[in-house]
Amino acid sequence: MNKINNCIKVIAFDADDTLWVNETYFRDAESQFVKLLAQYETHNKIDQELFSVEIKNLSDYGYGVKGFILSMIECALTLSNGQVSQKTIQTILSIGKEMLNKPIELIDGVEKVLQFLQKKYTLIVATKGDLLDQERKLEKSNLLKYFHHIEVMSDKKEKDYQKLIRHLEIQPSELLMIGNSLKSDVLPLIEIGASAIHVPFHTTWIHEEVSDESHSNSNYQTITNIKEVLTLF
Amino acid sequence: MNKINNCIKVIAFDADDTLWVNETYFRDAESQFVKLLAQYETHNKIDQELFSVEIKNLSDYGYGVKGFILSMIECALTLSNGQVSQKTIQTILSIGKEMLNKPIELIDGVEKVLQFLQKKYTLIVATKGDLLDQERKLEKSNLLKYFHHIEVMSDKKEKDYQKLIRHLEIQPSELLMIGNSLKSDVLPLIEIGASAIHVPFHTTWIHEEVSDESHSNSNYQTITNIKEVLTLF
Repeated sequence: MNKINNCIKVIAFDADDTLWVNETYFRDAESQFVKLLAQYETHNKIDQELFSVEIKNLSDYGYGVKGFILSMIECALTLSNGQVSQKTIQTILSIGKEMLNKPIELIDGVEKVLQFLQKKYTLIVATKGDLLDQERKLEKSNLLKYFHHIEVMSDKKEKDYQKLIRHLEIQPSELLMIGNSLKSDVLPLIEIGASAIHVPFHTTWIHEEVSDESHSNSNYQTITNIKEVLTLF
Repeated sequence: MNKINNCIKVIAFDADDTLWVNETYFRDAESQFVKLLAQYETHNKIDQELFSVEIKNLSDYGYGVKGFILSMIECALTLSNGQVSQKTIQTILSIGKEMLNKPIELIDGVEKVLQFLQKKYTLIVATKGDLLDQERKLEKSNLLKYFHHIEVMSDKKEKDYQKLIRHLEIQPSELLMIGNSLKSDVLPLIEIGASAIHVPFHTTWIHEEVSDESHSNSNYQTITNIKEVLTLF
């Protein structure tokens, strides 16, 4: 495995499913949603429809829990032909508030890695989602002290990382990103000349999945546990 | 009127109702909401209840359109004792999407002020609300070119501005904020030793209003039109 290059100044960590568990909570919420609408459609059809409403709404709502709740409500109205009960809509609102108030479960080994890296690098969090929700999670995580600041990004495409680099006033080669999503945390970084380490989480939202061909020649490292970061420096 | 002090390095502009019209759209949405629920309660009671649901939900949802839509849905369910029709909930979702897709109406004179100030200062946008929504508005406004970057803040209290100053790596005395809300854009800045210019907008959300006593001794300038900024430098 290659060591990390010498010119890195800033290390950016993705948050959800890199620093702490997140996707699991979305999957739980989806399961609850499927049960709530079971009288109208099959499990599979409800899953598909919710995903398609979420993707359609991304340009309006962006990423995060609030847009997810709004999409669940819209999907419930559509799938039921406007017949879904008011009580079910109330329940969907409650599922959303529960998601926003979940405790933080850190990924094993994260704090050791941050303690080690903060001695030599400027660490930041670079995450998608709702601003308040991400700030609150960072506060609850007790990891705030390791980071220079948090960048909540509306998307994680090449142009968004280019904006981040301009904002940080560094060169692409001076940025290393560590995250669980190949599509959002790794490939766009490689494209713009930055470095990336991929730490897969056991669950990936289908929207974050990429085909094998799209990254077979890429130049990044994949590790199975974030603790392995320590061996790369 | 006093001139602005010499040590300012960064000028932060509030966005909504400082650079462009915003509160007007929230008021329009509230009027539509009142009409939708007119069969259940008086105009006044609906207004009060919506405000109280919004405030209760601020800690979960933060500021911005998405939280506002969710609060309207919750309020509709509460006010109607769960009787509100599915069609009305669909309409509330549509009101929200319309809000997110409104055209940008710049406040008169804004561009001249930015053109003048960008020659000498680093300009940033410091705004509350939904990240994607604010970024999209800035892009639509064609004002992006004047700003170093946009800071979407989860709140605008003293501690939030202190965080901003640390992030900008400047002293409080080197920051000047320009905005329409005394509570959010002016008073906390004065408290932490920064400067502020108050440019009231004709409409203020009641949550942003402050009592006279709380700012009678404050040390900031109030102007009636953003163009007057030019006379202060």
